[in-house]
Amino acid sequence: MASNAPAKTSFHMTPEEFRKQGHAVVDWIADYYHRIETFPVLSQSQPGEIRASLPKDAPAQPEPFAEILADIERVIVPGITHWQSPNFFAYFPCNASGPAILGDLLSSGFGVQGMLWATSPACTELETHVLDWLVTALGLPEKFVSSNTGGGVIQDTASSSSLCAVLAARERATKFVSNRIGAKQKLVAYTSNQAHSSIEKALKIAGIGSENLRSIDVDANFAMRPGALATAIQRDKDSRLTPFFVCATVGTTSSNGMDPLDKIGAICREHNIWCHVDAAMSGTAALCPEFRYFQNGLEYADSYCFNPHKWMFTNFDCDCFYVADRKLLIETLSVLPEYLRNKATESGAVIDYRDWHVPLGRRFRALKLWFVLRYYGIEGLQFHIREHVRIAHDFANWVGEDARFELVVQPPLNLVCFRLNSSDDINQKLMDALNRSGDLYLTHTKLNGRLVLRMSIAQTNTEHRHVEKAWKRIQEEASRLM
Amino acid sequence: MASNAPAKTSFHMTPEEFRKQGHAVVDWIADYYHRIETFPVLSQSQPGEIRASLPKDAPAQPEPFAEILADIERVIVPGITHWQSPNFFAYFPCNASGPAILGDLLSSGFGVQGMLWATSPACTELETHVLDWLVTALGLPEKFVSSNTGGGVIQDTASSSSLCAVLAARERATKFVSNRIGAKQKLVAYTSNQAHSSIEKALKIAGIGSENLRSIDVDANFAMRPGALATAIQRDKDSRLTPFFVCATVGTTSSNGMDPLDKIGAICREHNIWCHVDAAMSGTAALCPEFRYFQNGLEYADSYCFNPHKWMFTNFDCDCFYVADRKLLIETLSVLPEYLRNKATESGAVIDYRDWHVPLGRRFRALKLWFVLRYYGIEGLQFHIREHVRIAHDFANWVGEDARFELVVQPPLNLVCFRLNSSDDINQKLMDALNRSGDLYLTHTKLNGRLVLRMSIAQTNTEHRHVEKAWKRIQEEASRLM
Repeated sequence: MASNAPAKTSFHMTPEEFRKQGHAVVDWIADYYHRIETFPVLSQSQPGEIRASLPKDAPAQPEPFAEILADIERVIVPGITHWQSPNFFAYFPCNASGPAILGDLLSSGFGVQGMLWATSPACTELETHVLDWLVTALGLPEKFVSSNTGGGVIQDTASSSSLCAVLAARERATKFVSNRIGAKQKLVAYTSNQAHSSIEKALKIAGIGSENLRSIDVDANFAMRPGALATAIQRDKDSRLTPFFVCATVGTTSSNGMDPLDKIGAICREHNIWCHVDAAMSGTAALCPEFRYFQNGLEYADSYCFNPHKWMFTNFDCDCFYVADRKLLIETLSVLPEYLRNKATESGAVIDYRDWHVPLGRRFRALKLWFVLRYYGIEGLQFHIREHVRIAHDFANWVGEDARFELVVQPPLNLVCFRLNSSDDINQKLMDALNRSGDLYLTHTKLNGRLVLRMSIAQTNTEHRHVEKAWKRIQEEASRLM
Repeated sequence: MASNAPAKTSFHMTPEEFRKQGHAVVDWIADYYHRIETFPVLSQSQPGEIRASLPKDAPAQPEPFAEILADIERVIVPGITHWQSPNFFAYFPCNASGPAILGDLLSSGFGVQGMLWATSPACTELETHVLDWLVTALGLPEKFVSSNTGGGVIQDTASSSSLCAVLAARERATKFVSNRIGAKQKLVAYTSNQAHSSIEKALKIAGIGSENLRSIDVDANFAMRPGALATAIQRDKDSRLTPFFVCATVGTTSSNGMDPLDKIGAICREHNIWCHVDAAMSGTAALCPEFRYFQNGLEYADSYCFNPHKWMFTNFDCDCFYVADRKLLIETLSVLPEYLRNKATESGAVIDYRDWHVPLGRRFRALKLWFVLRYYGIEGLQFHIREHVRIAHDFANWVGEDARFELVVQPPLNLVCFRLNSSDDINQKLMDALNRSGDLYLTHTKLNGRLVLRMSIAQTNTEHRHVEKAWKRIQEEASRLM
């Protein structure tokens, strides 16, 4: 060390440096949204390309913040698939919005860890309060309100909510006899053959196993057949198995199929089976009274979840999970070591959300949800949901008017499933060509054994003009292929 | 509607509004850090107080952003327990830092969902790369590097990592015979009686049950006795049970106990038992070569985790989870529906992190970790870790010099366990008085059946002067009580 400079006594970023660099990052993001349509939606990066541009080892010495930020443009942007582009129609969306990003920034700034009420009362109480707001705003059953026997909690994803539902259902069915490996009782679960893969994953995790998940037939609209469910349950009961869990879906991933909750719920009630409802994508639509019909029968549900991080402009991660009986959920997941004991918990007057999910630690996720609900207001959210549905129905009409295409199912909301009247191979080529062009990004599924393209019209920034342009591009590529 | 104003065509925040409001939020956070020491560290809010200041229902109409931000001060701040205060000595820290907050802000801004490599190659590749960096920087075994058979992934918390370790271990032991409910094989797991509660929670979730967790005795330094472990395993084998999982802890929550990994690892190897190492808090210390001795024997581990969101200044959530055999982990958690199929996955040339944990969706968490490693450099991180350890040892000396107090165990790193030579009740009163004063926040545990106070000296902004002041306050309150 040739330098005579005094030894550094701190490597931390000072508040004033944070102010300066924070402004620079905010500006970078604002500029990113201005030019987001100039990037290919699907990253054109090749495997290993991003890593190849990074140094082999972590730097020994500090680097200036400006250099780090410059690498966002140089190293990271080419490897981004632009989920916030209005031309993103793939999967389901993962929507950000200005108020959500800034709510989340405050959450990072506070840096509180809300495992217990005491470790930041505002983190717990705002979460409970906002989730109660949503019960009213979405017209959910009253039992999900925290002043009743139930309550809501923010989880990272619907996968985690489904897991918690499976676990609570398992404990209810086995009466908390915990040594289940070696137990005699064989549990069986049910979903439609269109349900999300997370249900199967949850059953694997819970030690119940994939092969104890019955895959129930669907009707022409890809909704579970209640008759088939009832038959399967009876068959399992006759075989001395224990049916314990049904997951009904509001808006399946492949096609937005809407399971008939009233009929499924009544069957669950009859057999004392836990009824979980997964509305991860479509639940947001219930903000609009005219779309609430798909919730008919939700009063039968023991648990329910939907993802504001999909269609409600609240950036990832934010899944709202409700249970009708919070006591059972807490009993399923609670372990209380000495170092977490505190007076507030012992008073019984507070919620400790650590007992409502797998992780112990938790960040202040309610802030971004609160910001979204206030910045948009319920009417603002309704406006954009209705717009997306309207645009999707226009798109479905255009598909119907072009004889080369087939509308595979009438879209109940904002997901349009369509295909070229041609082979799977040609449909795959159509999708690949569109995605490779960078002009838009859409993905596929299989319905009735055939490859089907999915236009998910739900991105925060998608307007009518983006979908018009996408349809023109789809027609162009189709002309080239046919 | 009396207004003649044209109907709104968008309720979204424009990029220019985001720029303006983003600057305001950054300024708010910078100012918060300037005045963070003026707040009582532990929130003085009473149960229900925060909720009482919130309206009963979500607003129907949009609210101006400035009003929402103003409510942060009015509604939220009184309910915050200030985890980022330099006077926070409770639990383990949950450290934020400027570069981490800004990396996370970029993650929110991009809003990518990295479930598959294809859904943002940079999200996956930066994560793999930075986790490889840390293998070198921490001196972890080479098998954890992604170019080997293993690899690392970011999870939300050590609880989730422990769960994944338990699940992979369960599958290895049962050879993927998935219908375990009804199976004959009875699995048994082992930790010291000082291990974190998340291990018990993981066993409950996995369907193995709390009562199949053996709680192994510890020595005078609260480290697991390998002899007791070997005896328990043999006893279970003699009873025709299947020992399948051991969790060793590097830095227990109560007292920073360091389990002897070499001896425990050798026992696991002998019996073909999965060895998981939980270094959630103390793993960061391995950035300094002089603290790596507690990793001796880590080469036996099948899985390992530590939390940069604790001591490595990377804000929550960021737990780094490593496995020696990634194939087994993926096989444990993978379910591949049609709608997630894509060419990159099928090529086998990429990592899809969705198969490495419970959730399907995932945010771009590697950005904040990358920013921290570059902004501090390894030397900057080492500097602050050494500072915290030095300050903790000073504190331990002060305790030793005051005859009214007892140092319960010599601190291996930065957690000091001490108590007044008095009753548990007086110690509880001491802690309550200090916490109620708002000057500092510390928490307790029980060691050898006695109530012990924990000074966790690891908060990002904690300097020597803060701990000096804390010690003076502790002495003052002790004088008042004794």
